Amino acid sequence: MLMRNMVNCELVNELDSVSLLHGNADTCGDLAKIGIITVSDRASRGEYEDEGGPAIHDFLREAIASPVEVHYRCVPDELSQITNELIHLSDVIGCSVIVTTGGTGPAVRDVTPEATSVVCDRILDGFGEQMRAISLQYVPTAILSRQLGGIRGESLIFNLPGRPKAIRETIDSIWQAVPYCVDLLNGPYIDMVDAVCTAFRPKGASRR
Amino acid sequence: MLMRNMVNCELVNELDSVSLLHGNADTCGDLAKIGIITVSDRASRGEYEDEGGPAIHDFLREAIASPVEVHYRCVPDELSQITNELIHLSDVIGCSVIVTTGGTGPAVRDVTPEATSVVCDRILDGFGEQMRAISLQYVPTAILSRQLGGIRGESLIFNLPGRPKAIRETIDSIWQAVPYCVDLLNGPYIDMVDAVCTAFRPKGASRR
Amino acid sequence: MLMRNMVNCELVNELDSVSLLHGNADTCGDLAKIGIITVSDRASRGEYEDEGGPAIHDFLREAIASPVEVHYRCVPDELSQITNELIHLSDVIGCSVIVTTGGTGPAVRDVTPEATSVVCDRILDGFGEQMRAISLQYVPTAILSRQLGGIRGESLIFNLPGRPKAIRETIDSIWQAVPYCVDLLNGPYIDMVDAVCTAFRPKGASRR
Repeated sequence: MLMRNMVNCELVNELDSVSLLHGNADTCGDLAKIGIITVSDRASRGEYEDEGGPAIHDFLREAIASPVEVHYRCVPDELSQITNELIHLSDVIGCSVIVTTGGTGPAVRDVTPEATSVVCDRILDGFGEQMRAISLQYVPTAILSRQLGGIRGESLIFNLPGRPKAIRETIDSIWQAVPYCVDLLNGPYIDMVDAVCTAFRPKGASRR
Repeated sequence: MLMRNMVNCELVNELDSVSLLHGNADTCGDLAKIGIITVSDRASRGEYEDEGGPAIHDFLREAIASPVEVHYRCVPDELSQITNELIHLSDVIGCSVIVTTGGTGPAVRDVTPEATSVVCDRILDGFGEQMRAISLQYVPTAILSRQLGGIRGESLIFNLPGRPKAIRETIDSIWQAVPYCVDLLNGPYIDMVDAVCTAFRPKGASRR
Repeated sequence: MLMRNMVNCELVNELDSVSLLHGNADTCGDLAKIGIITVSDRASRGEYEDEGGPAIHDFLREAIASPVEVHYRCVPDELSQITNELIHLSDVIGCSVIVTTGGTGPAVRDVTPEATSVVCDRILDGFGEQMRAISLQYVPTAILSRQLGGIRGESLIFNLPGRPKAIRETIDSIWQAVPYCVDLLNGPYIDMVDAVCTAFRPKGASRR
């Protein structure tokens, strides 16, 4: 099983997995498609179980009140495969948000930021800055991370750290800005579970 | 009236407006030319009154002790028009500082950072970083801002947020570095009203 | 004498100076080669004594427990000369880390970041961000600095400020991430003197 602990979702298959998070019955939000790409040579070869993808999936399940169709991929640290998946999830599947985990360090095999940069029309420097600033509260080596955020068409793409602990340290904070960004990209209204992660929207942009 | 609340200045005309801030009688500074460009489809069509440009003008009037010739423009969110105004204010008018407001978000019509990037010889990453860091104290969506700073010839250019409140939250802090930057670009000595915004200059670079 | 205060090292010559820091007898680390490039028109002409290079040398001597072969250069603010030295120290000498001092401001003669950008395969945005964030605690003009970090082959390169005080304000903090970065680039194990600067390594990556 590539994705564990998936309460409240159906795993369609392992290689091209799609799962549905039903959300809360009283949500005011729309159905959103969200992509998760785990970038790891060893996880993609099955040498160990991916922990980053499930950590992101857990966050989406806990934090989003509106329904979400999650598209999950696990690919090796190869530029062409990462770019292909990003383009497929954005252009063909129509994901409003695509998050990656892994491959953002300084080592020569780390190419996730390069792939992100290649596919994005515009870079949002604030994502990398803020994720590094958060991680710096825990480890001084956060400055080695090359995490990026950017936009391709109507998809927001950003790179999370590789370790589950570091993922949750950053995504719970960063995601506060994601629903409004998706609004600005003409995407579905993503409704959040405030107790986990409150979306910020300017007055007049909130349905609640 | 496009520019309101302009105490202590003369509005020459509305379309190509130039105004003079006399500054304080006892200033040790030189006359500086400063450009303000409001980037907004709706304000440029007259659908609503520009509030960002006047907020910047208010800051210049309150904070600068030396005389300033302010050149103001309001243009739609069009790359070519923004780049043309930036080039004109820099190369023809000779502005030492040009600040923009509006058009720095992630939406497809937002192209102010692109225009800034096109005209600048070099980018000063610290401006965007610090403006986002300041705005993050107020709203988590500050990470969506793509504000840039950079240099074209002898002009310092930087992008402020669109809303008057957000402008004043950032410009009062950021501007502390502006007079010394203009010194380094061989521009006029900009003297500040310390009670509003204190310029930082290393010892030996200050006239006071 | 270009480099002063060099306790515990041998100065081979002034123009192409190599010095050896013996480190501590009980170190668990390997011999590392580290380059220092002072970028300054006036210091390179001998109009004043370089203070930035020696400040970096002092840090290396105080903070690194394993032996270090230090390669020192002083060049004018010329793009070609800085890039040549960076390439030589990286590709020919085989330095694992190369630090520069000077030439990162907004003035037209400041071209150290341009040289760094030209020679690096990949940029590590976190270095510039964090060095500016540290310097901002002391001076608001830190946002004018264009300091960069990046990787060329197996060399980590980053730009420090020019003044000795500002160098030590930043290098003591930033360097905590350097030994692990060198590990990830397959370089020598750099062992630190914890009382001066503690290297951060994830569990399993530390020899101690």
